[in-house]
Amino acid sequence: MLYEKVKQAVGILNELNIDMWLTFVRESEASYDPCLNLILGTNITWQSAFIITRCGKTIAIVGSLDYERVRLTSLYDDIRKYVSSFKEEFLRTLNELNPKIIAINTSKNDYMSDGLTHGMYELLLDFTDGTGFKQRFISSEKIISALRGRKTATEIARIKASIQLTEDIYRQVSDYMKPGQTELEIANFILKKVSSYDVETAWEQNSCPAVFTGPDTAGAHADPTERIIQKGHVLNIDFGVKKDDYCSDIQRTWYFLRDGETAAPAEVIRGFTTIIKSVQMAKDAIRPGMKGWEIDKIARDYIVSKGYPEYPHGLGHQVGRSPHDGAGMLGPRWDRYGNVPYLPIEVGQVYTIEPRLPIDGYGVATVEEMIVVTENGCEWLSHPQKEIYLI
Amino acid sequence: MLYEKVKQAVGILNELNIDMWLTFVRESEASYDPCLNLILGTNITWQSAFIITRCGKTIAIVGSLDYERVRLTSLYDDIRKYVSSFKEEFLRTLNELNPKIIAINTSKNDYMSDGLTHGMYELLLDFTDGTGFKQRFISSEKIISALRGRKTATEIARIKASIQLTEDIYRQVSDYMKPGQTELEIANFILKKVSSYDVETAWEQNSCPAVFTGPDTAGAHADPTERIIQKGHVLNIDFGVKKDDYCSDIQRTWYFLRDGETAAPAEVIRGFTTIIKSVQMAKDAIRPGMKGWEIDKIARDYIVSKGYPEYPHGLGHQVGRSPHDGAGMLGPRWDRYGNVPYLPIEVGQVYTIEPRLPIDGYGVATVEEMIVVTENGCEWLSHPQKEIYLI
Repeated sequence: MLYEKVKQAVGILNELNIDMWLTFVRESEASYDPCLNLILGTNITWQSAFIITRCGKTIAIVGSLDYERVRLTSLYDDIRKYVSSFKEEFLRTLNELNPKIIAINTSKNDYMSDGLTHGMYELLLDFTDGTGFKQRFISSEKIISALRGRKTATEIARIKASIQLTEDIYRQVSDYMKPGQTELEIANFILKKVSSYDVETAWEQNSCPAVFTGPDTAGAHADPTERIIQKGHVLNIDFGVKKDDYCSDIQRTWYFLRDGETAAPAEVIRGFTTIIKSVQMAKDAIRPGMKGWEIDKIARDYIVSKGYPEYPHGLGHQVGRSPHDGAGMLGPRWDRYGNVPYLPIEVGQVYTIEPRLPIDGYGVATVEEMIVVTENGCEWLSHPQKEIYLI
Repeated sequence: MLYEKVKQAVGILNELNIDMWLTFVRESEASYDPCLNLILGTNITWQSAFIITRCGKTIAIVGSLDYERVRLTSLYDDIRKYVSSFKEEFLRTLNELNPKIIAINTSKNDYMSDGLTHGMYELLLDFTDGTGFKQRFISSEKIISALRGRKTATEIARIKASIQLTEDIYRQVSDYMKPGQTELEIANFILKKVSSYDVETAWEQNSCPAVFTGPDTAGAHADPTERIIQKGHVLNIDFGVKKDDYCSDIQRTWYFLRDGETAAPAEVIRGFTTIIKSVQMAKDAIRPGMKGWEIDKIARDYIVSKGYPEYPHGLGHQVGRSPHDGAGMLGPRWDRYGNVPYLPIEVGQVYTIEPRLPIDGYGVATVEEMIVVTENGCEWLSHPQKEIYLI
């Protein structure tokens, strides 16, 4: 699987006219470069360089004590080990290959391409001082964005398997939930299922699943609480699993009927229907070559046009080896997102679509679906929720 | 516990004459600043600033969706949340406090103080462009080094408890081991014990424990293999646990008697005795104010004087919330260690002492002990191994 991605990287280097992709890291267990799960799959301790060239050479420069575990990955044909000085072996390698353009692991915009710490960047400048190499550094964000974004058939198959398991767990929790339970009870039920299938949660267990019931909930990213599900609550769950290294990320929404009710109240249905419509409009608009913000705007504008506040986050992100996998996002042109909403949508990318809106007095209406971009549009990967689930 | 460290940080800021300590992070689950386990204890998604001032103010600037989980830590008195732009709230805060010196989370030498990515550093420069603040940035490595290094009484007590459990597991594995077993069997036995005590391993399970039996083993940092323990092998284990957030890190060495032997062969005893002697010499020499390299040199020179090669790593590192906790190390003045072997030894620091040497035809002799620095020297935290264990 990683071997497949490393080979894919060589093609991308040629397409982008980049001679060398250099990932410079140290002590990855303390301070992890997100790129390592794509090109290494293990941890290293000492200063290390992982190099892929447009000619297809794969070279690792690692400390002697890290040699064996890097060798066992079988990803690097040429492993150069050192004891006291990384710099010497590193410069020898640069001089030998003499790359004109060197893409390094730094990026202002895409945190998944920004594993190089500033201290390590300064070391890189020190090492190459007076050599002429330091004028050749560019960001590797385009390489990583393409490499993460363009899923191979194997990757899509794994993501589908991960989604299928998630949907299966959602069916079980739907049968299990009832008023009187707490958010934490629901979360624990799901975590037990996750562990019974011998997979991991897609992100840290504190907030995977995230469970929110009723009005005035904490909002996304907060952990499940002792809050009790009551009749008349809208409840939503944000959850995904990681199976064979690939993630799912899906949200679902329920309504708990009050005594005598046989359907959700009109305002709940109106809120939920607005969400479903906005998801469908976004999904229908996606085409390769469009910018992420254009898709976000469609859903956002529609929700606002119906009198709801706009959601305080992006419409969707890419999913793969981690819940956020690939730079480009379906997000608004906000300061804090930098350039990523401006990146083009590409074939093979997997996105979530996840708008939200508050329903006063009830809770939050949201779904999160997953799609894969195709030549002419996109296809559902998840089985989309069309109506609010009633309990 | 974290509250105690945040309060301690205020004292250190005053001692170092630093007005503000600023930790700037984003998406900590993908790319973790090692400092967050000291001053936050949870993850954040959007660009966030965690600020501690010499006056004792604690301010967090976080995205709206991260607000609730930061509030729940109770570590920040003043939490300022934003939706679309971090920059605005950040500049407002800087202008309000007007710090003359701002220590930021970057360091060339100490990876535990180097959580700021280069992309984030560039964002910080962009945000403060034209403000005059950007000339006030310095590295926070001295703050973090002091804060991690100087253990409180509570921290020492927790480390001791972690060591005690590790020594207990070592006794059990010593009773369990016999020739014919593989390194992996030994590792799995230990992992089962770890899980029965409901604690974690101190570092990732692949190499915690690390188990090496016999000659030509892969060397430290490699994972246990199917290699079979044979009579006549020297075997060593590197292992620690994390209990109540504090780690131990201890190594032990065994010899497997051949038929008819009642003691280890002379060359094994000579190698092991050289290690024990070098540990004792290093331990006896430690005084606050000395430099780490001076201690490393004592053990290293002694081992070399006995005709063995020098160990290919530092003599010891600090231990605490993680297996490497505190910048200063007992290490040689090698390029790749930067300035950390030059940092002074301080009261309250907890170090390992872990030399090693190969015994040709048998395996590797090593122990790893833990000590705490006191006013006049240091004290054992572990119960030191004095003789090679025989099985």
